[in-house]
Amino acid sequence: MPEDRFDSDPNVTFDRDRQLRIGLEEAVLAEFKTVDQVSAILGDAIAEGRRLLLTRLTHDQHAALPEAQRAAIDYCPISRTAILGDLPPQAVTPRVALVSAGTSDAGPALEAQRVLAYSGLSATMVADVGVAGLWRLLRQEELLKSMQVVIVFAGMDAALPSVVAGLVPGMVIAVPTSVGYGVAAGGQTALNATLASCAPGILVTNIDNGYGAACAALRFARVTAPAMAQATPPRDAF
Amino acid sequence: MPEDRFDSDPNVTFDRDRQLRIGLEEAVLAEFKTVDQVSAILGDAIAEGRRLLLTRLTHDQHAALPEAQRAAIDYCPISRTAILGDLPPQAVTPRVALVSAGTSDAGPALEAQRVLAYSGLSATMVADVGVAGLWRLLRQEELLKSMQVVIVFAGMDAALPSVVAGLVPGMVIAVPTSVGYGVAAGGQTALNATLASCAPGILVTNIDNGYGAACAALRFARVTAPAMAQATPPRDAF
Amino acid sequence: MPEDRFDSDPNVTFDRDRQLRIGLEEAVLAEFKTVDQVSAILGDAIAEGRRLLLTRLTHDQHAALPEAQRAAIDYCPISRTAILGDLPPQAVTPRVALVSAGTSDAGPALEAQRVLAYSGLSATMVADVGVAGLWRLLRQEELLKSMQVVIVFAGMDAALPSVVAGLVPGMVIAVPTSVGYGVAAGGQTALNATLASCAPGILVTNIDNGYGAACAALRFARVTAPAMAQATPPRDAF
Amino acid sequence: MPEDRFDSDPNVTFDRDRQLRIGLEEAVLAEFKTVDQVSAILGDAIAEGRRLLLTRLTHDQHAALPEAQRAAIDYCPISRTAILGDLPPQAVTPRVALVSAGTSDAGPALEAQRVLAYSGLSATMVADVGVAGLWRLLRQEELLKSMQVVIVFAGMDAALPSVVAGLVPGMVIAVPTSVGYGVAAGGQTALNATLASCAPGILVTNIDNGYGAACAALRFARVTAPAMAQATPPRDAF
Amino acid sequence: MPEDRFDSDPNVTFDRDRQLRIGLEEAVLAEFKTVDQVSAILGDAIAEGRRLLLTRLTHDQHAALPEAQRAAIDYCPISRTAILGDLPPQAVTPRVALVSAGTSDAGPALEAQRVLAYSGLSATMVADVGVAGLWRLLRQEELLKSMQVVIVFAGMDAALPSVVAGLVPGMVIAVPTSVGYGVAAGGQTALNATLASCAPGILVTNIDNGYGAACAALRFARVTAPAMAQATPPRDAF
Amino acid sequence: MPEDRFDSDPNVTFDRDRQLRIGLEEAVLAEFKTVDQVSAILGDAIAEGRRLLLTRLTHDQHAALPEAQRAAIDYCPISRTAILGDLPPQAVTPRVALVSAGTSDAGPALEAQRVLAYSGLSATMVADVGVAGLWRLLRQEELLKSMQVVIVFAGMDAALPSVVAGLVPGMVIAVPTSVGYGVAAGGQTALNATLASCAPGILVTNIDNGYGAACAALRFARVTAPAMAQATPPRDAF
Amino acid sequence: MPEDRFDSDPNVTFDRDRQLRIGLEEAVLAEFKTVDQVSAILGDAIAEGRRLLLTRLTHDQHAALPEAQRAAIDYCPISRTAILGDLPPQAVTPRVALVSAGTSDAGPALEAQRVLAYSGLSATMVADVGVAGLWRLLRQEELLKSMQVVIVFAGMDAALPSVVAGLVPGMVIAVPTSVGYGVAAGGQTALNATLASCAPGILVTNIDNGYGAACAALRFARVTAPAMAQATPPRDAF
Amino acid sequence: MPEDRFDSDPNVTFDRDRQLRIGLEEAVLAEFKTVDQVSAILGDAIAEGRRLLLTRLTHDQHAALPEAQRAAIDYCPISRTAILGDLPPQAVTPRVALVSAGTSDAGPALEAQRVLAYSGLSATMVADVGVAGLWRLLRQEELLKSMQVVIVFAGMDAALPSVVAGLVPGMVIAVPTSVGYGVAAGGQTALNATLASCAPGILVTNIDNGYGAACAALRFARVTAPAMAQATPPRDAF
Repeated sequence: MPEDRFDSDPNVTFDRDRQLRIGLEEAVLAEFKTVDQVSAILGDAIAEGRRLLLTRLTHDQHAALPEAQRAAIDYCPISRTAILGDLPPQAVTPRVALVSAGTSDAGPALEAQRVLAYSGLSATMVADVGVAGLWRLLRQEELLKSMQVVIVFAGMDAALPSVVAGLVPGMVIAVPTSVGYGVAAGGQTALNATLASCAPGILVTNIDNGYGAACAALRFARVTAPAMAQATPPRDAF
Repeated sequence: MPEDRFDSDPNVTFDRDRQLRIGLEEAVLAEFKTVDQVSAILGDAIAEGRRLLLTRLTHDQHAALPEAQRAAIDYCPISRTAILGDLPPQAVTPRVALVSAGTSDAGPALEAQRVLAYSGLSATMVADVGVAGLWRLLRQEELLKSMQVVIVFAGMDAALPSVVAGLVPGMVIAVPTSVGYGVAAGGQTALNATLASCAPGILVTNIDNGYGAACAALRFARVTAPAMAQATPPRDAF
Repeated sequence: MPEDRFDSDPNVTFDRDRQLRIGLEEAVLAEFKTVDQVSAILGDAIAEGRRLLLTRLTHDQHAALPEAQRAAIDYCPISRTAILGDLPPQAVTPRVALVSAGTSDAGPALEAQRVLAYSGLSATMVADVGVAGLWRLLRQEELLKSMQVVIVFAGMDAALPSVVAGLVPGMVIAVPTSVGYGVAAGGQTALNATLASCAPGILVTNIDNGYGAACAALRFARVTAPAMAQATPPRDAF
Repeated sequence: MPEDRFDSDPNVTFDRDRQLRIGLEEAVLAEFKTVDQVSAILGDAIAEGRRLLLTRLTHDQHAALPEAQRAAIDYCPISRTAILGDLPPQAVTPRVALVSAGTSDAGPALEAQRVLAYSGLSATMVADVGVAGLWRLLRQEELLKSMQVVIVFAGMDAALPSVVAGLVPGMVIAVPTSVGYGVAAGGQTALNATLASCAPGILVTNIDNGYGAACAALRFARVTAPAMAQATPPRDAF
Repeated sequence: MPEDRFDSDPNVTFDRDRQLRIGLEEAVLAEFKTVDQVSAILGDAIAEGRRLLLTRLTHDQHAALPEAQRAAIDYCPISRTAILGDLPPQAVTPRVALVSAGTSDAGPALEAQRVLAYSGLSATMVADVGVAGLWRLLRQEELLKSMQVVIVFAGMDAALPSVVAGLVPGMVIAVPTSVGYGVAAGGQTALNATLASCAPGILVTNIDNGYGAACAALRFARVTAPAMAQATPPRDAF
Repeated sequence: MPEDRFDSDPNVTFDRDRQLRIGLEEAVLAEFKTVDQVSAILGDAIAEGRRLLLTRLTHDQHAALPEAQRAAIDYCPISRTAILGDLPPQAVTPRVALVSAGTSDAGPALEAQRVLAYSGLSATMVADVGVAGLWRLLRQEELLKSMQVVIVFAGMDAALPSVVAGLVPGMVIAVPTSVGYGVAAGGQTALNATLASCAPGILVTNIDNGYGAACAALRFARVTAPAMAQATPPRDAF
Repeated sequence: MPEDRFDSDPNVTFDRDRQLRIGLEEAVLAEFKTVDQVSAILGDAIAEGRRLLLTRLTHDQHAALPEAQRAAIDYCPISRTAILGDLPPQAVTPRVALVSAGTSDAGPALEAQRVLAYSGLSATMVADVGVAGLWRLLRQEELLKSMQVVIVFAGMDAALPSVVAGLVPGMVIAVPTSVGYGVAAGGQTALNATLASCAPGILVTNIDNGYGAACAALRFARVTAPAMAQATPPRDAF
Repeated sequence: MPEDRFDSDPNVTFDRDRQLRIGLEEAVLAEFKTVDQVSAILGDAIAEGRRLLLTRLTHDQHAALPEAQRAAIDYCPISRTAILGDLPPQAVTPRVALVSAGTSDAGPALEAQRVLAYSGLSATMVADVGVAGLWRLLRQEELLKSMQVVIVFAGMDAALPSVVAGLVPGMVIAVPTSVGYGVAAGGQTALNATLASCAPGILVTNIDNGYGAACAALRFARVTAPAMAQATPPRDAF
């Protein structure tokens, strides 16, 4: 039966031309779209030679894309991000660190790293320094004190951001992750723990939102680093 | 082993003849039924030449229906609705707009559009006007001010209904959607945000309930538009 | 009108003679009793020359007790505990430390200390060593490593128990406290954070339950320290 | 009865000398302390001629302080903050704006303003620009675009931070407030809405945490504005 | 100490002149304002001879207002609303009914009735028709069928809106109330029950939000009843 | 100012004559009514010589009633119930036991006992048999096995109903109580524990709902005991 | 590698001989067991010629059982129950009705019916009488009034039990079902609505717990119907 | 496209050499890692001849490991643990019991047993003694009274730990399990019930956290049993 009774409405075009309209590169939040919708958006970008960043592209969605599209993109299965096109030259200021508590937090940390790289900012990654073995973090204390923005990724009890914020003078952004089970509740406990932190000045994003933390770092760059003033972070298209 | 020990009980007939009994077209909420139950209901309607509307018919349920039944219905995979039979002539009053924040909200918006179309009311769709890029909404301000009923579909933070309700004089119905992750919590945050809106007079439905919002618009039509007074919205059979 | 229609029922005597029946000293959870009930229990103990421990005796309840009863008890307004009678000699083994994150956690910490003292066990208190100023805790590292049981009191994000458990070999019992606002949610976030801790082997009590943690330490004492084997922890009468 | 059985323990001194130990000015979170504890801390600071900042000092706590102490401090009943001592010279960079949705959000906004002022940073306040009357915000668009840090205070549905973040290039910090009833749930809906925002790069604090947002702005100042590098934000003593 | 260091900031004027600026009568949500703020707003209106509607003005707030202000307003303690000035002539179309399940639901029902009356619309009240005694509702069936908008107030299990929506063709707006204890949870169960209703087309407001339901009815009036087109519902000032 | 603009509406009579209309004695849920409403209902009953049962009449409400009304009723402050008029003769079948875990559970247990007594059924109370001291319950095992309906009152972890249901053949009704703190959450944990019980056939009421459990026992009596067939349980007027 | 290091422990035998030990037929809660565990339990029963009832046996578990075992049992896919062996003669007293709101509630209703049938009690099923079309229920009013126990199955808003309890004198047991989406929350809203019902004396089970409701009806039978006194309901083996 | 743009960062090595660095055997929390990450960690251990303990290794992860790795480990599908290498000699003091309520609780109980065995401590398992059949537990009363540490595994209502703690003098650790449906909520009700227990001194772990309970028992061993002082429990690598 004809679905096109509705398709003829010009408003249901799913905004495939949004990127033309607003003239800036965008990130596409893929998770809540059908494969057809993602593929159409990707196809348009390829056809027009534009760069594109996709976030939360699930493994199943990726596997269902046409072979040619899969070949055209750089897909990172851990962060579930895909990049179409080249990376710009990478700046090293502002100084941004990505600090994660454990191996399982790699997904959001890599998402942030890749969003920053897509926008031309190189970040320093400090992995696996959870507070259960405090010496791992203390070994990195001087490095972290030299940073302007420190993004901390932690799940479970998310004690790491509190300890980091007690050690460093820079901005501290906590990204609670969904690592953990039972009362960890998909990251809700980590989120609440970072919001209720005893260390002052911690700022928080949604659970697993490495993309949002990276966008915040890019906002920092735009208003502090002249070289980054023109950088345009990807805007979330959902 | 014989299950029919129970099947012989006349009360377990799953009300296949309800439509004959109550003499009005109904929507069937398919999601919580087995494929056998859905297929039986559909088969009866086909045999009797009746129209039928099914909501929340999952892709798996649709795929498991008999080939002949699949061919007989108009299935929209995005809204997960199925229509058996023809659409009636489409009225354009009352003036109803369906406004959605992003591409990912298309499911409930199309569900509402198809329920309205099934009942003979044509609605105007205004898609992808989320507040993160405010100019998209402001561009449609005059159109929306001319509407009697504005149904707004938004997930995540659901800021759009508040902004719309501050701009238009008509009735504003918010349909929170399940788009989002982490604290979005399957639409619970969007739901609460619309209920707690700072703009007065917003009315709210259950999460993703485009069907319910359309039924409310049909109630509006019945008590305000003489031509629609006889229109019978589908009743929810669960 | 006569309430004694019900009072004549022998089952509604509110168990004022429980202590005679079971022959062991008990703690009375006062918070959910009326002042009359608390006063009656206290009066019986005074009349019989028995010791008594009351927990969660609110300031209002305390103020409403008869003057003579108030004079007879040692009431600690911070921990809301009251002790009637003398303390026994105080043992120093097993070695138990009470570690608190901030001044605001003093209530449950003092409750635990007083329950232990009532039962004859002296504990070492280490106050105000929250992780926002890590040097405060690290300064006590050797002391804490020498303890057999370390009870940690922390509210807000409750990062302290995780860090402590990464430093010491002994048993670690976390008592989440209700200190904090907003998402701290009366201690729920601290509770969840300690349960989800990344440091292995942390055990947890109900929010603000210094009494329960002390009872656990007394259980430890009974099965490990011969001198404590006869010590009887107060049993919760609610 | 003697409570000093416990008071003689040197660990229960409630850290009245912390400020001497760590040599930096601190904020004291008053809400979870007894009046005696707050008064002792305040008395020490007065005696030693030190400045002091108290947050969440309730009206009842304030009223119960000794008359001389009440006269010595600048208490703001709306923000429930108290300042002892003079304000330092006020810098105007970095450029920080405090944007609030409604009159009822004044408490946390004033808390942030006073914490910043206490630390020597003057902020621009833009009050009562909630999205229900969008023109109020759009009138301030150019001002807000010139800011490096924009802190947005909003309760109920908290749609304002999303709209602001879509308009300005600077850092956007959302402080959800407890304004609202029913599903507003003491700020939980505003919190979740800002965390789930459709606008990228919003950072969030605990509910009503104007203090935390100000501390984050001071972290921004320390790593970007040479003149502020020595400024020391108050540390949270809880 | 001088709080006016901050008061001199022109942005902290608490918008006492908002009504002059936007030229339309407003409702003032009093609950989250200090008595001084409410009194100032009220004083301005009296001085300028303007009408004013206040919602959620608590008994304590009302009692603390100056005697002259208390005498000038019509305060309804059950609905906690106050009206300053005269009521306009009362229209009887559109036909709006206010249906409540029990006596305890009178607060929100009267709030809605008074908001409508303040805006010039007279509604029909049908009280105490909860489903536990079904005949009470069925006795009113014909009356309710003749209504264009039926606003139903119910707490506890909120079964009434579902039954009403199965009986009447008009718009059905459910206002869940906070009546009940235990799992009623301050109206959360009533809210969820109405949102999940098995009857199609029910629209829902926040808990106890009689004001919001009345505003929705006024939106209905503006787009359907020519005589009401100029009526301006009060706008929520929070 | 005249509130009677609304009072003249005949629907706002707060159903003071309901008892005449439906010809059966009712319970009045007092908690959510104003003192004026309660007093009016009580005054009518006194004037007409009718019996009346009030539940959840708070201490403050009771204290605010007119002296003459207070003298006319039998008020139980523990169960917060009030009875106006005489009790009928008390039947002893069906055999109903009221079993409570601790002294703090006396409120709902006495509420049930008084509702039953008001309706003419005498119940056996077995108090203070919580599972922390199992011998107390086992001592009553034979008595409980002889009962047809066993209503169990327990807060905190509510382990008692599960143990009782494993011992007795009769109907087991659990009334979770609000006794406890922290995760006890006002009875929510006790409620969930009884609903999730590992012992089969336990039935559950709302938290602290001794009234509801008594009504269920009266339903049992009506359909099993001929002598009770005419007994009319009080109906909940809220 | 050898798992039997643990299997040789006699305590880990998974209680395959429990039925021999306690000499009564049991229900086995299959959902949380592995297929091997279920198959072993079933194999023992077949070998010993015993009857057996399994509840919550998922479709996947059923499909994975050995062919011979699948042939030996009567599996009902809608209720996910399996019966091994013959049904006993079916009694018709006590009079029990199973009332369900919609077709989607058939699963728990059939579970109850089959548990009762397994234990020798025949129940009357009244299906598809949800309150959205009230006439369907009213048509059955006389039948329901003649019942001693009425078990009502409803999901979504679960308004049906409240209406039924207002109509019938017998015991009313509500089984909230997981039918619904969004705020229906897997049956949590239906559960809370039934617990908070405005109709007195409703008793409630866990979500979808048709087994528990049937066990309660069997408890009713044992203490009221001499012929059922020896009937032994299945005990839950989890 | 090359993912190795990021792989060349030395910080993203997923800490494969952590075991070399910290010189102690560790447990690897497998659930939140990709199969590639788990396989790499396992491969390193095999290559280096080290022992290794993996927890929460799902069936799908296990099935996806290389055949050779699967052959090298002892995988227990019920507890989802895997052990690489030999077990050390097994001590029998301290005396630890693992008590479980039902067959479905075997997963966490076996996890605890295997973690203890991996660390050289043999525990006594007492299975299937849930309180619904109280005699099963009472039969084991003397055995349990002789234990120093009693770990109790229970889901659903988790009444068992309360009853056990009322019977034994030793330490009682409750591990709430995720067994149950509906309000059991994946173990949340069991967790809350154990935290709110009426029996004093119960300590609690996260849901299903047999690993954590075993680590606590090993902490007990280190500070009480000289022979265990050198035993090193596995540390959680997440």
